[in-house]
Amino acid sequence: MRIAVDAMGSDRAPTVEVEGAVGALHDRADLTVVLVGDEARVRAELDRHPELDRARIEVVHAPDVIDPGESPTTAVRRKPHSSIVVGTRLVKDGKADGFLSAGSTGAVMAAAAILLRPIAGVDRPAVGSPVPSAEGTFFLIDMGANVDTRPQHLLQFAHLGTIYAQDLMGVDEPRVGLLNIGTEPGKGNEQTLETYGLLAASSTLNFVGNVEGREVIRGACDVLVCDGFVGNVLLKFYESIAGFMAEELKAEMEKQGVRLDMKRLYRRLDYSTYGGAPLLGVNGVVVIAHGGSPPQAIRNGIGVAARSVERKMVEHIAARLGELAETSVDR
Amino acid sequence: MRIAVDAMGSDRAPTVEVEGAVGALHDRADLTVVLVGDEARVRAELDRHPELDRARIEVVHAPDVIDPGESPTTAVRRKPHSSIVVGTRLVKDGKADGFLSAGSTGAVMAAAAILLRPIAGVDRPAVGSPVPSAEGTFFLIDMGANVDTRPQHLLQFAHLGTIYAQDLMGVDEPRVGLLNIGTEPGKGNEQTLETYGLLAASSTLNFVGNVEGREVIRGACDVLVCDGFVGNVLLKFYESIAGFMAEELKAEMEKQGVRLDMKRLYRRLDYSTYGGAPLLGVNGVVVIAHGGSPPQAIRNGIGVAARSVERKMVEHIAARLGELAETSVDR
Repeated sequence: MRIAVDAMGSDRAPTVEVEGAVGALHDRADLTVVLVGDEARVRAELDRHPELDRARIEVVHAPDVIDPGESPTTAVRRKPHSSIVVGTRLVKDGKADGFLSAGSTGAVMAAAAILLRPIAGVDRPAVGSPVPSAEGTFFLIDMGANVDTRPQHLLQFAHLGTIYAQDLMGVDEPRVGLLNIGTEPGKGNEQTLETYGLLAASSTLNFVGNVEGREVIRGACDVLVCDGFVGNVLLKFYESIAGFMAEELKAEMEKQGVRLDMKRLYRRLDYSTYGGAPLLGVNGVVVIAHGGSPPQAIRNGIGVAARSVERKMVEHIAARLGELAETSVDR
Repeated sequence: MRIAVDAMGSDRAPTVEVEGAVGALHDRADLTVVLVGDEARVRAELDRHPELDRARIEVVHAPDVIDPGESPTTAVRRKPHSSIVVGTRLVKDGKADGFLSAGSTGAVMAAAAILLRPIAGVDRPAVGSPVPSAEGTFFLIDMGANVDTRPQHLLQFAHLGTIYAQDLMGVDEPRVGLLNIGTEPGKGNEQTLETYGLLAASSTLNFVGNVEGREVIRGACDVLVCDGFVGNVLLKFYESIAGFMAEELKAEMEKQGVRLDMKRLYRRLDYSTYGGAPLLGVNGVVVIAHGGSPPQAIRNGIGVAARSVERKMVEHIAARLGELAETSVDR
């Protein structure tokens, strides 16, 4: 199993990526990590880990970096030697089984769309994220990659998320919910009203209906389907809550002279450290990590990529979405 | 000052409404409350408050109730003797200065649209809500009444919210933010991209740009403008967080054998007890309260209605939106 890692993507690259890779190699004995980036800088960072088995780590030189501010498609075309493009190409050429990057989400998506191509039956590859709930974890798709989606796209997201939940979360029949403004079938905007009909009509999805904002945290479903605009707003808001609560609670504790250790709770709530938002619907395993990822998130993200390969997630998506495309009447 | 109160709207009507009214009469010496609902039940409830100055409270009989499940417009037309329709008509006929209801939001909006009519220049009256942030409070508009809005509607919401913040929150030049998926002007979906241009071009708004989900809790603006779909999801999610955190913290405290009193924090976070989501853009003061409102929320909501009358908010909206309609080239 060979996972390519963009060594230049995160805010603290390549330190965080190298540390994350070292951790991932500990986690899986069958893993080889291919670090993609400025070779001199990556090797200098690797020198800080003399204990590492060098046979299990490789470095592929990529002198360029795509900046988050650049136009993704243009940057991918103009910077063939960027770590994102080189890493994606390794997957395309069969030299790596999967790719993880904490760089520009847009550029990772563009590189995957151009080099790996969308799977037949997938109009818009989507990015999902595991999100902590009171019950455990659910998978939110799409988390911001796709805005102005049509109902047909959300139907595809439901299938993509279902396969992810089956293969990576170990849920046999994932409950699919539609993020909406009311629980009744007749509630919603034009998009969710039509999407509700498509999801309810599916014979392969385990659709449990609309999920309101207040049910999200309760873990009302395993896969929560939404347009990327609302998914992005919701996730970023959630992300900010842990930090806000920490400050508020600290003030409360000081006032009351009480000391409560909140590390465990914050760690659970801080989904960004989960480290592994899969890009679903392209011909290859691609995982996107947060730009501010700590090493643990990179480590986890590499694990997500490795398990996606192991479970043959891409093959499962291709089989299911291909079938969906063939049987769908309104495409 | 006479504020009509739908005595039959909340989940625990009329107990909660009567208690709330009693509280509001304590708060303002210039206030008379008109309770609208089943007269026998309301009077029975009033009998539990013998200390009350009966000269300051009136009961107007309304035998019907509109159920939250009913189609709003149909229910308003078919139930002229419902508490929502009778209460709204009191405002229309000048027999009350404002109206508060904890009943069906859709029905309150429909009654206001039919009886009070939208203010000239307002295409879609909106419902906003004060929301707690790290900084204090901001005003989110729209909170769910309007989905599938167009950029022109969001521009109007920005003006409605600005006047609310000036008149009711005491902010001279309210900072207006656009809820979006990135801070840069070029980020967003079709709707927010176009709305950004309209807000930026306004000479009367204090537009501070896009506000991401993670900035919401920081209080990045005084007025946060959004389509009702995302506003509803965000607010309901926020509403659920306090309860979720309470359970998680309780478990943490038990594990660690520590006792921390969280009442103050939860009270601050639980925006539903703020009690007073104004319906803005109709010819009259209408305030919507949560169906699960405690008496304090009704009390606060009556206060919001009274202050809206006092500050001449409706007149300010009419002046500003009328002017906007006259000067706008693309209406």
